[in-house]
Amino acid sequence: MSKQGQQNVSSRNLADFLGVNPWQIRKDFSYFGDFGTRGVGYNIEKLIKQINKILKLDVVHKVALVGVDNLGSAILAYVGLGVYGFNIAAIFDIDPKKIGKKIRDITIEDVSNLQTLRKRKINLAIIAVSRDAAQQTADTLVKAGVKGILNFSPCHSHITVPKKVKVITIDIAMDLACLPYYISAS
Amino acid sequence: MSKQGQQNVSSRNLADFLGVNPWQIRKDFSYFGDFGTRGVGYNIEKLIKQINKILKLDVVHKVALVGVDNLGSAILAYVGLGVYGFNIAAIFDIDPKKIGKKIRDITIEDVSNLQTLRKRKINLAIIAVSRDAAQQTADTLVKAGVKGILNFSPCHSHITVPKKVKVITIDIAMDLACLPYYISAS
Repeated sequence: MSKQGQQNVSSRNLADFLGVNPWQIRKDFSYFGDFGTRGVGYNIEKLIKQINKILKLDVVHKVALVGVDNLGSAILAYVGLGVYGFNIAAIFDIDPKKIGKKIRDITIEDVSNLQTLRKRKINLAIIAVSRDAAQQTADTLVKAGVKGILNFSPCHSHITVPKKVKVITIDIAMDLACLPYYISAS
Repeated sequence: MSKQGQQNVSSRNLADFLGVNPWQIRKDFSYFGDFGTRGVGYNIEKLIKQINKILKLDVVHKVALVGVDNLGSAILAYVGLGVYGFNIAAIFDIDPKKIGKKIRDITIEDVSNLQTLRKRKINLAIIAVSRDAAQQTADTLVKAGVKGILNFSPCHSHITVPKKVKVITIDIAMDLACLPYYISAS
């Protein structure tokens, strides 16, 4: 909406876009302050800034990527990361053939270097390793001071971490598995 | 648990694993029938079968993949798809250099062939095309009778489809964007 030159947006517009009720929008925003003006709605630029601030997305975050097969490469090529201020600052792999090579000007490092993350002030990581290596990778990351993990390892790679660490798992097959239920319901 | 030879599981075990309350587990299952035995819990094999049946995952689903760059290739290589009975049965791309080539024994077809999906009884599709092409691809899929779409196009590619079609969007950047909030809260 901002790119289209729109200045304000109502809670109804936002609600329609998201498929929720307008009161839910107003209630959620109200937890963080009084953003809107009655009858006018929300100023879009201001709202974007405020949401980014709430989500701590108003600063650049350095991210480590562990694993660079097809999936890791796809993540690196993902145009969206920069939008939220994410900067893949280090890449790790276990494959000697890959270590030392450069992707997008970043040299692929041996996973044994993961322990340097704390010193390099990298506290976010993306795990894109094989299923069997996922838990061990997570353990190493936690030891290295990583606080947030996006787990992209295939299928059922449920990883366990201490409570202070936040893990978000993306399981393509699981997401796809949601679809048949809806199809048959129609 | 099944693979580890376990026979039964309690709602408490399941709840701990998922990070929810045991009563939520019991309540959710109760919508679909009486699966458990008081004091014993749920028989794991039976539970898996029943859940698969509820989610219509007890049959093989043919899926079309549109777009085979890094991301599309990663999806094809994704070991988890078979677990839920998904079979990538057709692959489409717009790039003349790719069309006609084979990946995993499947010949890449021109996107103009998408209209044949209905005849081929493929009603699930994964969109892994560029952001600009996502909506047009979705329109074509809907016209071809597709009922469920997993949208993997990068960043902000909100696609609009008729209500009868279910879309699940995976946005890597958006998932990553959830992490900084939790990090700072700790």
